[in-house]
Order: sequence, then structure tokens, then C-alpha cells
Amino acid sequence: MAVKSIAIVIVGDELLSGRIRDVNASYLAQRLRELGSDLQRIEFIGDQVSMIAETVRRLSPCHDSVLLCGGIGPTHDDVTMEGVAEAFGVGLVQRPELVALLHAWGKKLPEGAIERLASIPDGAELITVEDHFPAVMKENVFILPGVPKLLRAKFEWFAHLFRSDERSVETILFVLERSELVVAEAIARLAETVGPEVSLGSYPQRLGPISPELQLVLTARNPAALERAKTALLNAFPDARELSGGQGETEWDGV
Amino acid sequence: MAVKSIAIVIVGDELLSGRIRDVNASYLAQRLRELGSDLQRIEFIGDQVSMIAETVRRLSPCHDSVLLCGGIGPTHDDVTMEGVAEAFGVGLVQRPELVALLHAWGKKLPEGAIERLASIPDGAELITVEDHFPAVMKENVFILPGVPKLLRAKFEWFAHLFRSDERSVETILFVLERSELVVAEAIARLAETVGPEVSLGSYPQRLGPISPELQLVLTARNPAALERAKTALLNAFPDARELSGGQGETEWDGV
Repeated sequence: MAVKSIAIVIVGDELLSGRIRDVNASYLAQRLRELGSDLQRIEFIGDQVSMIAETVRRLSPCHDSVLLCGGIGPTHDDVTMEGVAEAFGVGLVQRPELVALLHAWGKKLPEGAIERLASIPDGAELITVEDHFPAVMKENVFILPGVPKLLRAKFEWFAHLFRSDERSVETILFVLERSELVVAEAIARLAETVGPEVSLGSYPQRLGPISPELQLVLTARNPAALERAKTALLNAFPDARELSGGQGETEWDGV
Repeated sequence: MAVKSIAIVIVGDELLSGRIRDVNASYLAQRLRELGSDLQRIEFIGDQVSMIAETVRRLSPCHDSVLLCGGIGPTHDDVTMEGVAEAFGVGLVQRPELVALLHAWGKKLPEGAIERLASIPDGAELITVEDHFPAVMKENVFILPGVPKLLRAKFEWFAHLFRSDERSVETILFVLERSELVVAEAIARLAETVGPEVSLGSYPQRLGPISPELQLVLTARNPAALERAKTALLNAFPDARELSGGQGETEWDGV
């Protein structure tokens, strides 16, 4: 499949307050890279219907898919479904199959909680896996729960939709004992040499478990172009050292 | 000072690729809460001039300040200054005081690196502290480096601008052995009782080091309103247990 452009939106006052640190966006970013999708942006917003609606209305038309996470649940501060409905100018409708599923769970849920959980934007599709509560998709917006364990499980139900044949490959090289300030021009020339097919990132001292002076990251969807760029880089910096693992996945998780 | 509305923008392909996990946005979010500012949204975008320009153009008019972090430096992939200049329809100008400062550092920097580092959007203000490289501010956009140590240091130079007399206070209570599904209606009634002055967040099992069934977070800028809300909450849930520390700072860092 062709490369998909994606936006992630994370809903939750608790993230904007700095009280908890996000784990969902970084997880999804990593999975999307593995799958070969093109993550364009991540936005964190508060639990407000108008803000969710504005964000979905802006991002949905200019990305293949939007992953919208958090703010789903039975309480008054869970307003993601309302926000999506408003974005698409539809109402919320209570879906009988969801009501039936919630009753079948056997937990003694109050009717109010069932009503809220079963109400989703009109025209939304359900992604159903066995007897789990379905994932909800309205147009190109996938709605995911904010609880990390649930988010990860549900994302995998439809992760295959984001798989691309043109997955990115990357090579990371360390240029030791040189400051970015000193080699900036050489790197700029190199970026011109490798051309637009290969992206060349330059990071001073801040990635990974070891602390080299400078890290150069080459990324491309065409392995042959990546190989050519790597050769050019090694010509420019003969003492550059490649991160073990070579092309493809890196072995560390970053700072 | 009155409460300021803030947007944070983090620039960097390395964050969208999931290769490294952000520490800057969560740090700034925490500091802004301590200072009493109102953080409205956080956006992560790639190292592209057009994307930076679009984001600044959209966020600058509807927030008191924008904190724009990363993509500053001498290499070809550092394009934040270009993005800000484009957003405000101005060019980059080389500032003689920055050139002089870079020369005075005594490091042997290539002229190209000096030219790039000294070129900032026309009309930008410099926030100068001793002989450090200044922080740059264009209109209401504060431009910060992406290297966490430098970002934290520079933010403190002007952090006082974000201090509000109406700082938020909060109380966190645990309601044990009750599922959010079961108490959703009671919480919704409580939210109505406490009124719009107090924000009431409800979080299932996912905050903090211990794992209660449900965590309720009350936040307000008026301590008396917070106290009234807490009394109402304890009436509704007599067995609710308060997180040690009471009003004000919480003692844990979240998940």
C-alpha cells in the first residue's frame, strides 16, 4: 500500500497540566514508523468539545487518517465523541449493538453509563474484534481510548491499514569529536549531494545512551538511495562510526 | 499578573519518528502549571519551513504567547528561524551583536555557522543574560533551543513573564474499589454542584504510583472554591482518600 499521511491528536487536560507524561503518542509514533506511515504532526489538546471539533475539522481533510486518543468513557469530562460529532456536523446516536454488548458484559452498569458509552457520532463505523468493545471510526478519524494498555491493543486491530510497501530504512552514524558548529557546512553540502530522496538529520549530543559529539541520521524509503547517501557520508567523514543494527530499526529507545 | 494563555510548539523530525521521546513539552507544561499560566495546546511538527510558518501563523494570534522549541542551530535541518520569519512575512537579518558574541566565544567557528546562528527574523527582540547566547523573541513567539539542558536554562530567563497571581491549586482524591463506569452519574452531578470555577477530572487507574480504582482531580484558581468542591466531593464519596500534599503540588510525577 502507498504511504499514508497521519496526524495524531491526544485529548486530555492531565497531559497539558504536566501532571502525567504522555506514553501514547510516542508509542503510536514508533509503530507508525515501523509500519511505514508518514506521521506529519502530533497535537495535545484539552477536554473541550469545541477544541476537539476545531482540531478534527482542520486535520481530517489534509491527512489520510487521524488517530484521536483519549476522552472516551462514561464521565462528564469524556467529550471526545461529542467533539467528533460536532466536527462532522452530525449528532450522537445510541447504537443498539453497543448497548447489547455492554449489557452482555454482566457488570452491573448504571443505565446512564451505558447510554454514554453506546452513543457515538452518527454514521460512524465499528471495528469489531470478538466480544471486545469495538473501536470507532468516523470518516477518516480513528477514535482510541486513552488508557495505554487499551490503546495499544485496539490500535493493533487496524494497524495493517497503515502498513506501506515503501517502509523507511535508516542509518545512524556518529561523527566523533566534532562539533555541529564546525561541520555544519560539510553537512549542508552532503545534504545537497544525497538529494531529496534521502533525509539527513544532524543531532548534537542528545540522542541515545552514549554521548558522541554529533549524530547523523539518514532516512529514505529507497534502500539503494540510502546506500548511496551512506557512501557519500563516509567519504565526507571517513571516521564516522555506524550504529550497530545498520539499516532499519535502531536498538535504543532514545532519551 | 493575569493568567496567560500559552501554546507550545516542538519542532523535530526525530520526535515524529518515535526515535526519541519528548522531554521538553512535559517539562514546560509542568513549569507553566507551577507559574499559573494556562497551557492550551502542544503541537509536534517536522523540520519544515512551511509547516513551522503555518503553525506559528495559526497559533500566535489566538494565544498570549507561543513557546517554539527546537530546530535552532547551524545545520541545514535547523529551519525554525526561517519558519518564524515566513510566518510574520519578514526576512532573516544578520545581527552584528550576535556575530560579535560568536566571535568573542573564541571557538574557531566557520563563517557559515556564524552567519546562520546570527541570522534571526527581522524585528526580533533579544533576551540577553550575561554573555550567554540570547533567547530570541519575535512578536509573542519565544524561540527556544531543543537541547533540553539549554531549553530549561533559557526558559528561566523569562519564566517570570508567565507567572500569574491566580495560580491553580488542586486536590487529588482516590475513590477506592469503585469503577468509573459505576460512579459516572454521581461524578456528573458533582461536577454540576461545584460549578464552572472548579475543574473536576476523573481518571481510571492510570495516574500515579499506586493503582486505585478511580482518581478525582479538582483544580481551581480560587482556593475557597476548591475547598467547597472538596467538601461536596467528600459528602458524595465519604470514603474518598486525599493524596498527601493536599492542595498545591502533587508528590508524584505520573506514569
